Amino acid sequence: MTSQEAIQHLSHLLAQTRQQAPVPFTERDAKRALAALLTTDNLWEAIRLSHVPLRALTAFWHQLIAAELLEARDGALRLTKSGQALAQALGVAPAREATCPHCEGRGVDYHTLPEQVVTRFAEICKQRPEAIQAYDQGFVTEATTLSRIAFAWHRGDLEGKTIIVLGDDDLMSIAAALTGAPARILAIDIDERLIQFINEVARREGLDRLEAVRYDLRDPLPTSWLRSFDTFMTDPTESFLGFKTTIERGLMALRGPGCAGYFGLTHVESSYEKWARIQRFLLDSGAVLTDLLDDFSAYINWGYIESMRSWKWLPTHRPPERSWYYSALHRIELLRTPALENTAVEGDIFSDEEAATT
Amino acid sequence: MTSQEAIQHLSHLLAQTRQQAPVPFTERDAKRALAALLTTDNLWEAIRLSHVPLRALTAFWHQLIAAELLEARDGALRLTKSGQALAQALGVAPAREATCPHCEGRGVDYHTLPEQVVTRFAEICKQRPEAIQAYDQGFVTEATTLSRIAFAWHRGDLEGKTIIVLGDDDLMSIAAALTGAPARILAIDIDERLIQFINEVARREGLDRLEAVRYDLRDPLPTSWLRSFDTFMTDPTESFLGFKTTIERGLMALRGPGCAGYFGLTHVESSYEKWARIQRFLLDSGAVLTDLLDDFSAYINWGYIESMRSWKWLPTHRPPERSWYYSALHRIELLRTPALENTAVEGDIFSDEEAATT
Repeated sequence: MTSQEAIQHLSHLLAQTRQQAPVPFTERDAKRALAALLTTDNLWEAIRLSHVPLRALTAFWHQLIAAELLEARDGALRLTKSGQALAQALGVAPAREATCPHCEGRGVDYHTLPEQVVTRFAEICKQRPEAIQAYDQGFVTEATTLSRIAFAWHRGDLEGKTIIVLGDDDLMSIAAALTGAPARILAIDIDERLIQFINEVARREGLDRLEAVRYDLRDPLPTSWLRSFDTFMTDPTESFLGFKTTIERGLMALRGPGCAGYFGLTHVESSYEKWARIQRFLLDSGAVLTDLLDDFSAYINWGYIESMRSWKWLPTHRPPERSWYYSALHRIELLRTPALENTAVEGDIFSDEEAATT
Repeated sequence: MTSQEAIQHLSHLLAQTRQQAPVPFTERDAKRALAALLTTDNLWEAIRLSHVPLRALTAFWHQLIAAELLEARDGALRLTKSGQALAQALGVAPAREATCPHCEGRGVDYHTLPEQVVTRFAEICKQRPEAIQAYDQGFVTEATTLSRIAFAWHRGDLEGKTIIVLGDDDLMSIAAALTGAPARILAIDIDERLIQFINEVARREGLDRLEAVRYDLRDPLPTSWLRSFDTFMTDPTESFLGFKTTIERGLMALRGPGCAGYFGLTHVESSYEKWARIQRFLLDSGAVLTDLLDDFSAYINWGYIESMRSWKWLPTHRPPERSWYYSALHRIELLRTPALENTAVEGDIFSDEEAATT
């Protein structure tokens, strides 16, 4: 196959993929997907390495299978000889990871936290509530939560600060409180189980600066929380509306310029088109992006995986054995007070065309 | 001192600082500067930790000294008792670094590169040309260059790709060529010494896909380089005009959507205001920011430090012993073909109000 033929073939596959899945999917995305398939035959590893929205990725896989370029069997994906030839003619090489083994690629060493923060957090996590689908939950590894807190401390957003955590199945509020560094921490969540758990931990562990309050992000932020915090942390649902709503609540909770926000964003549910749209929204809101650490956050596999929206899109089915869902940690800092309206939001904030886990 | 008095005092210091130095300097910047002074008495470590443009930082230090909040002597900076009291009343805490010691905070382990790339690169670097001020040079550590290449490989921007390096005192083109992975590498630089050095290394080491050509970034890009590369890498001068010109040349050299660019940006010479302006320019040019790894690149102290513009701003003088000048590694990916004009640029591209090293 010549390079020219390969490009034509890919272009045909792309057109069909876009017809099947109405989400952005670029030629580069297709090459990333092929690179992943050259690297692993594990379905979940292929998702992790592809860095492509799962909706488009699975549609692309189905096109490859129909064209006899890929075989899907027993939870494994294998490029056929023609599939390998196509990848080669396109100049696609296997993915070559350069992740630091010591910090799992985060650049942050959470062992810089006091040792008892790490041990007490591990003990507390043993009794945490299970992730549930109704609220699009799915929590990160303990190393991820601790690394986020170590990073916020490093950036000067923890010690002596008032912190709001918007949605806290990752238990960031507890890890932050265990350091003893923040002045005050408020965790808000729609899930009554989490509110009870966090408040119970706060009482039992003597974390008197930590409080959890039930709140639905679709409601306007209570007046007493407006312009009251130095730092917000969140791991939003990724429909554009859900994401924007969550970040706007976070921005409105900040005192003003110089305050910081932390949030996660994935490839599994968000295309680079959506990333760009979010970046513009942040700039328009008066924020600058100061850090963007991809694959920082690793998620523990949740129990409802077989009933998630994307399960039926998979060409072969086997539950994952290792983490496959990652998100990129973003830090923003406010340069201006954002002009935002604290109004109620109607409708489905959990889903858009690229959503995969709801 | 009450918190209210401290805020008023800081606000007065800020106003005077802004009068002295016509560059953006926020309250948060001032608090970062104070946090650094609570952490170290080493002048250069204080610069590194402050993450504030040096022009504003040194003006702020002079205000602190005039108000007897800071003492500068023998290359050391020490907050006085009143200075410490001010920091405390403002709720400023010492900086607490969480940097991974294994990868120096990069998240990338360059030992994933073939061992002979590392050893050959070290050997080659022994004879590299010295950094000179006329071209605003200052090169990064070998670990930095190798980590950038390992990261680009990880992101799929190296193997089988055509790469253009715009300005290459960091010798990225040589490190990339040593991997044997890229299809072609072109290094361009204004400095004839570097061109000769890179071409000589290419000849001697048998790196036949590597070529260096003399080129002045102020000139339009030669037609044969337009839309011809998959990846650009650069470490631009940071005046807004110089930065924009360099990135535009890089973007114009890319084939189109899906292609990637790498560049560095500092705090020493660029405020978060400038960062935000650059982020908007990138989005407007059709790019999305995919990675932003602060303090990724560590610079070897250059020989002309005592004649750089900012030397005379320092309140006390002693040459640095360790790296103090760092930059943030950015990766962008094109979503659209940018509409840019390949025209000559006139004037001083090396300097603006925030410039420090020219």
